[in-house]
Amino acid sequence: MDEKAKKQALRMITYGLYVLGVESQGEMAAASVTWVSQASFEPPLVMLGVKRDARPFALLKESRRFALSFLETGQAVIARTFFKTQSPEGGTLGGLRFSVEKTGAPILADALAFIEGDVVSIDETGDHAVVVAQVVGAGARREGSPLTLREVGLSYGG
Amino acid sequence: MDEKAKKQALRMITYGLYVLGVESQGEMAAASVTWVSQASFEPPLVMLGVKRDARPFALLKESRRFALSFLETGQAVIARTFFKTQSPEGGTLGGLRFSVEKTGAPILADALAFIEGDVVSIDETGDHAVVVAQVVGAGARREGSPLTLREVGLSYGG
Repeated sequence: MDEKAKKQALRMITYGLYVLGVESQGEMAAASVTWVSQASFEPPLVMLGVKRDARPFALLKESRRFALSFLETGQAVIARTFFKTQSPEGGTLGGLRFSVEKTGAPILADALAFIEGDVVSIDETGDHAVVVAQVVGAGARREGSPLTLREVGLSYGG
Repeated sequence: MDEKAKKQALRMITYGLYVLGVESQGEMAAASVTWVSQASFEPPLVMLGVKRDARPFALLKESRRFALSFLETGQAVIARTFFKTQSPEGGTLGGLRFSVEKTGAPILADALAFIEGDVVSIDETGDHAVVVAQVVGAGARREGSPLTLREVGLSYGG
């Protein structure tokens, strides 16, 4: 396989930016993710690629639940804050307010929208796990356009 | 769950547009898909949501291989052509030239880039299957920006 072409092609996949929030046994963590897609209408499923060697994945595996905060155009600075995993400090995550809804996982107060998921399956074949989850909660806080990875000026893939 | 919020949130996920090409035992089919993401760097995996009750999925299940042609900004008309499954006619697919590479699955000649995948797993929990595949071939034909679902003016999700 042409490795250069593989990298170039995979970097042409279009992505948004989301903050994955997880909670297990009182511990919370949150980090940016971009490999997110719906996977079924009925039941409503989503699929995520989640880095296996980081704390959010460890907590997600334990609790088998998570929240996904959808970032809005103009919120690149929030995405960048969560490129590093954030834990609660002074009632905030990376200095940002959050709340919890159904799953106990943190949801950013400034998010455009959010969904909460109950994990259906986890495939650990690769360096990122394929997490398939049923959507069990959702909120849409305002009209707006989503933040895209392209807007942030980065690629994550290849 | 707030069904309206669920629909509104899920429609805020950002997507590109791709033409899924499949071939099994001499039969070819191709159709547009939008639920596509990388899922691992090493090994290089992608995950797709593929409508279960359509011909491309039946062929993909048989051959366990496929090609994904990446559409470019301005190619909305091609995406629309493949909203309906196309089969070869006069050596074209929906009037468009195609070629085959490693997997035998059709790749559009006008695509910006393509990847070819060997299926690793198929989860049929939902109305779309979660197809996880290893990237075994790729080509990047020119520089360019990918076509997004937003550019086409449609949503697929909710």
